[in-house]
Amino acid sequence: MSDDADRSAATGDAERLYHVDGDLVPAAEATVSVEDRGFAYGDAAFETMRAYGGDVFRWGAHADRLADTCETLGLDHGIADAELKRRVDETLAANDLADAYLKLSITRGVQPGTLDPKPAVDPTVVVIAKPLPRGGVETDPVHDGPAALQTTKTRKPADRALPAAAKTHNYLNGILARLELRVTGADEALMLDPDGHVAEGATSNLFFVDGTALKTPSLDGPILPGVTRATVIDIAESEGIPVEEGTYAPDAVREADEAFLTNSTWEVRPVATVDGIALDGDGEGATGPLTTLLSRVFDRRIEERHYDGERL
Amino acid sequence: MSDDADRSAATGDAERLYHVDGDLVPAAEATVSVEDRGFAYGDAAFETMRAYGGDVFRWGAHADRLADTCETLGLDHGIADAELKRRVDETLAANDLADAYLKLSITRGVQPGTLDPKPAVDPTVVVIAKPLPRGGVETDPVHDGPAALQTTKTRKPADRALPAAAKTHNYLNGILARLELRVTGADEALMLDPDGHVAEGATSNLFFVDGTALKTPSLDGPILPGVTRATVIDIAESEGIPVEEGTYAPDAVREADEAFLTNSTWEVRPVATVDGIALDGDGEGATGPLTTLLSRVFDRRIEERHYDGERL
Repeated sequence: MSDDADRSAATGDAERLYHVDGDLVPAAEATVSVEDRGFAYGDAAFETMRAYGGDVFRWGAHADRLADTCETLGLDHGIADAELKRRVDETLAANDLADAYLKLSITRGVQPGTLDPKPAVDPTVVVIAKPLPRGGVETDPVHDGPAALQTTKTRKPADRALPAAAKTHNYLNGILARLELRVTGADEALMLDPDGHVAEGATSNLFFVDGTALKTPSLDGPILPGVTRATVIDIAESEGIPVEEGTYAPDAVREADEAFLTNSTWEVRPVATVDGIALDGDGEGATGPLTTLLSRVFDRRIEERHYDGERL
Repeated sequence: MSDDADRSAATGDAERLYHVDGDLVPAAEATVSVEDRGFAYGDAAFETMRAYGGDVFRWGAHADRLADTCETLGLDHGIADAELKRRVDETLAANDLADAYLKLSITRGVQPGTLDPKPAVDPTVVVIAKPLPRGGVETDPVHDGPAALQTTKTRKPADRALPAAAKTHNYLNGILARLELRVTGADEALMLDPDGHVAEGATSNLFFVDGTALKTPSLDGPILPGVTRATVIDIAESEGIPVEEGTYAPDAVREADEAFLTNSTWEVRPVATVDGIALDGDGEGATGPLTTLLSRVFDRRIEERHYDGERL
C-alpha cells in the first residue's frame, strides 16, 4: 500500500540493480519510454511488498491482488505468477538483499496513438528493490514513530469512478491528501469516502479500538484490500479479539481508545493523534495494549516465517 | 484533452526527436526514470496541443491551464512559460513539423522515498511531437468520422477526490470508461458526474443543440475546461448563437437535435449516435446545421491564424 521507505533511499542507490522488461539494469539506467502508458496515463498495476530474510512476505496474496488489478484494468499481460516471482527473487539476489522493500509494476506498455487500451499488450514489467531493515520484536520499526492523523478535505473517489481495490499508478488522490498535511505537520491523511464515512489513509488501512473490539472500515466501501490489513484481522481472530468491519463516522476514530495504521512497509503503526487530539489510553499518547499485542504477534509471525497462513 | 492522434503514429517514429529534460533525443531513447513520480504515481501535469503552420494554437490558454494544474498539484517547477514554449518550438523545428500533435508534460521528477510530495522539485519536462495534418475547410478532419457515444457505468470522480480542471497523468478514469466501449463498438464515452448528470467524454467536451440553443455542461461540474470548448463558445457567441452552460440529464443529449465533441486534436467532431440511437436532424445521421456552421468557423479561424482572440 505504501512506498514509504524513506530510510532506504539514502544508501547505495548508485550500485543498485532494478529489473526492467526482463533484464537487470543499474538503477540509474532503469527507465521507461515517455510513451509508455504507465507514464502517460498511470495505466499500470503495482504491488508494494516486503522481503524478510530473502523471502517475499505473503507473495501469494500480493500476486492475487495484482491479478485482480490487472483484470479490472483489462490488462492481459500474459506473464505467469511464477515468472513475476522469479524476477522479484532475481532482483533481491542481484542486490544481495535479505530484508527489503519491493515494488513490482506492470504497465500496459507502449501502444499507438489513442487513449483506448488495445487488447494486445506488450507489457512493461519493473521491479524496484531497496534495503529495508525489518522493525520487529528487538529492533526499530520502519516508520517514524506513532502517526499523526489528519482528516482531509480530499475524499476517496467513488468505486464507480476509480475502483479502490485496484492498486494502480493513479495515485494523485492520495498525493492531494498528503499535500493538505503540509499545513498541520500531520503525517498521514484520514480520508473519507464520498458519503463522509471513514475510508483509509493515503497509503494505509485504518484500524481502531473501541472497548475490546477491533474495528476497521469494511471492504464494501472504497478501501484497498490491504495484505497487512488481512493479516492483522487474521491475527486478531486467532487471538480471540472480536473484529468488526463496518461503516464509521470520523468521530468514532477521534473518540477511539486506540488506533493504528497498516501497510506492507509500516506493518502495524500506532496512531498518536487524530486531528491534533491525542487518543485515549493513558492520555499521554502511549501505544495502547491491543495495538501492542497485535504488533508483537505480527512480528512473531514474521520471525517464525509464518506467512500466507502457513509456515514456509 | 486528447491523445487521439492515431493517424500520425505510423509515420517516421524512428527518426523523430522528443524533448526530454532540456535536450532533444531520438524518440526511441526518450525515457524517464522508473522512479520518476510521473511514472510511479501519474504525478504530472500535461497539455495536448495542435500546431498549425508551425504555430501552437492558443498557446496562452494551454500555458495558463498548465499553470493551474501545477498549482493544484502543489508542483512549483520554476520554469517560465517562455522557456516551455521555446522547448515546444524547438521540438517542432527539430522534426520539421508545421501541422502537428504536441504533448507537453511536467512531472514532479524523482524524489526520495515516500508518497509525500516534497516542496523542492527537480521537474521532468517532456515534449512529444507528431505530424498531424490539419483537417479543415478543404481537407479531411483528423477524427474517424462522426462519433458513436455510449453512456458508461464509469462515472467522473467528484472534484474533491480528483479535481477535473487539473489535466494530469492520472487518466485511468477515462481508460476504464473507454474499456466499456469494447462491447458496443462505440468510440467515445458519455460520462456522468457523481449525481448522474452529463459531464464529458473520456477525452472530449460535449456540446448539444436543442432547438436553436447550444448547450454544454457547466464548469461547475467535474468538467475539464477545454481550450477547444472555450473557443467554440466564443465562436458561437460571435455568431449570435445562444449558449447555455448548465446541468443536464443524459436524456437531454439522447433527445438532442445535434451533438458534437471537442478537443484539441478532434477540433469539432460531430456525434452520430448516442447509446445506439441516431440523433435527429434528417434522421440519417448527417451532421446538423449548427455543428457544420461552428466547425466551418473554427476552420476559418485557424486558416486565418486567428488564435487567442487575436490574429497572430
